[in-house]
Amino acid sequence: MLEDKNQHLTPISALGEFGLIKRLTEKFSLKQDSSELSVGDDAAIINPDGKKVVVTTDILAEGVHFNLGYVPLKHLGYKAVIVNLSDIAAMNAAPTQILVSLAVSNRFPVEALDEIYEGIKLACGKYGVDLVGGDTTSSTSGLVMSITAIGMENSDKIATRKNAKPNDLLVVSGDLGGAYLGLQILEREHAVFLANPNMQPEMEGYDYILERQLKPEARTDVKKILDELEVLPTSMIDVSDGLASEILHLSDQSQVGFRLYEEKIPMDTMTITTSEEFNLNPVMCALSGGEDYELLFTISPNDFDKIKNHPDFTVIGHAVDLEQGNYMVLRGRNELSQLTAQGWDAFLNKQ
Amino acid sequence: MLEDKNQHLTPISALGEFGLIKRLTEKFSLKQDSSELSVGDDAAIINPDGKKVVVTTDILAEGVHFNLGYVPLKHLGYKAVIVNLSDIAAMNAAPTQILVSLAVSNRFPVEALDEIYEGIKLACGKYGVDLVGGDTTSSTSGLVMSITAIGMENSDKIATRKNAKPNDLLVVSGDLGGAYLGLQILEREHAVFLANPNMQPEMEGYDYILERQLKPEARTDVKKILDELEVLPTSMIDVSDGLASEILHLSDQSQVGFRLYEEKIPMDTMTITTSEEFNLNPVMCALSGGEDYELLFTISPNDFDKIKNHPDFTVIGHAVDLEQGNYMVLRGRNELSQLTAQGWDAFLNKQ
Repeated sequence: MLEDKNQHLTPISALGEFGLIKRLTEKFSLKQDSSELSVGDDAAIINPDGKKVVVTTDILAEGVHFNLGYVPLKHLGYKAVIVNLSDIAAMNAAPTQILVSLAVSNRFPVEALDEIYEGIKLACGKYGVDLVGGDTTSSTSGLVMSITAIGMENSDKIATRKNAKPNDLLVVSGDLGGAYLGLQILEREHAVFLANPNMQPEMEGYDYILERQLKPEARTDVKKILDELEVLPTSMIDVSDGLASEILHLSDQSQVGFRLYEEKIPMDTMTITTSEEFNLNPVMCALSGGEDYELLFTISPNDFDKIKNHPDFTVIGHAVDLEQGNYMVLRGRNELSQLTAQGWDAFLNKQ
Repeated sequence: MLEDKNQHLTPISALGEFGLIKRLTEKFSLKQDSSELSVGDDAAIINPDGKKVVVTTDILAEGVHFNLGYVPLKHLGYKAVIVNLSDIAAMNAAPTQILVSLAVSNRFPVEALDEIYEGIKLACGKYGVDLVGGDTTSSTSGLVMSITAIGMENSDKIATRKNAKPNDLLVVSGDLGGAYLGLQILEREHAVFLANPNMQPEMEGYDYILERQLKPEARTDVKKILDELEVLPTSMIDVSDGLASEILHLSDQSQVGFRLYEEKIPMDTMTITTSEEFNLNPVMCALSGGEDYELLFTISPNDFDKIKNHPDFTVIGHAVDLEQGNYMVLRGRNELSQLTAQGWDAFLNKQ
């Protein structure tokens, strides 16, 4: 589990709760002006200085969200932070602080927690976010991580899921489906390893999609780009469960329907070729795969010219009246297929 | 585990993640002006309106922090909230919002989560706190709860652990040691039950200490009382790990020592009689038992007259220079015994 097998390992009980928290957090420095008091008191103190505060939390469980058989602990720490920063970015707000709680069984030595916190520190450093609190406890089995992220923004800039209007354009950042195919590679190579531990895993040539799965990034840059383009999203969500599910959330909360154009869904070449290797439809991977952590948002049709040539954004559809429902317009066929939370039924049945 | 054994039980998988979150949270209404957007988006929106925000988080694991063999689920939900509100109260701030995350194994039906959320709702109602977010996931085993609490206060009122000065008075709210003895009763009766399920548990006559353990309260009233008395604490902490441990935290972070007077430690009569029943020293229960969730704080000696007659507060000692260390002055003997995080060594050795 640990990358260096020869190091001396310390049981968590050797440090005690306060010693452990000190060891894990003392290398974190504060960068945000709004972080007034950090780890070590009953609570952290945040000074939003007139802005509104956005708060989100996620809980990740071993065996459900991650398999330590093929997810390095450092990547796990990194990704757990990213998942939460992505939720803050999806409010069109800037993430500023996180709190990290861990429940760990005794089978984890302190050095395993060090690795998780190295990943957390890497993410904090990259995104300029401060670790300001948390809690660490033993558990009777397995590893559970709970992260709370805090962000700030002026109230007129915050984007919820509620204000998409008919005719608004549906836009997505980056490309989709890669994280799901990265997971397929990891699971395939892990199965090969379990069958024959001497086999070398075949990971070469899959760098992009493996990184999408193991070390995703939060699109905190989207807010800055939209600010520069002077575009205010009318609704916004991050793509954690898959494009179809996210479109339905925007539909439900904004009370509009959507038309999604199959041919417009942005996908990387590696995503497409790997999906063929696994006999999967790449569009299904984008619709239902999830974990891409791109941002999906709507903009006024008047803003189309501002956004149309930006390489990070793709217009993939538009909002319609609620009664018209949520459908994907099939490539080259002008036929409609209903979007469902599990993805696109037609594709699911075909595979 | 569930109080009504005859009800129809629903597997969590029957609802799905979004259905489950909706079922668990739809009965919660918002009461705080600062809660602008609650459950159902990527993040909650909080408007602190010029105040500073205090944030804390705690993670509780089955088999470590609670035993479902004798802790009803509703009480568990209630107490999990209280533990966090107590941390906010210990900053001399008012709690305003919570976020709740659960990792639960499939052995829990939806109705078990309903009971936990009933307890959470009871606590939210009593303390006027809004549930504004959270996450629910399956786990491979057991139940892990992670709660984040948010509070607000003007910056000149917030009390950290850092500003106690020599000669400041050490004050505690309520009484101590009861929660630990309540736990002894629960564990004793649970052991009797396991040995002979037909035996009736003998809980009568222990109401106060059982309630201290099963349904503790957060001393959010202390802030209001201190405001009325025009007393600003110089440092503050809540008694979650035991009086000795908390005194040492204040000592460490304020860089002062403390003198604690054994004869001043407030204890309920039931705590004292029950400790005798278990052949435990009641002072040791107060020093090391923990979970009393009272507030321990320091005030300027000039404020003594304002506080001395208030029935909720007891002056139990005073701060000294750091070099003088942390000692308890023994009852009637004018001898000193060093305070340690595990409690009071002399007593531990005697028992």
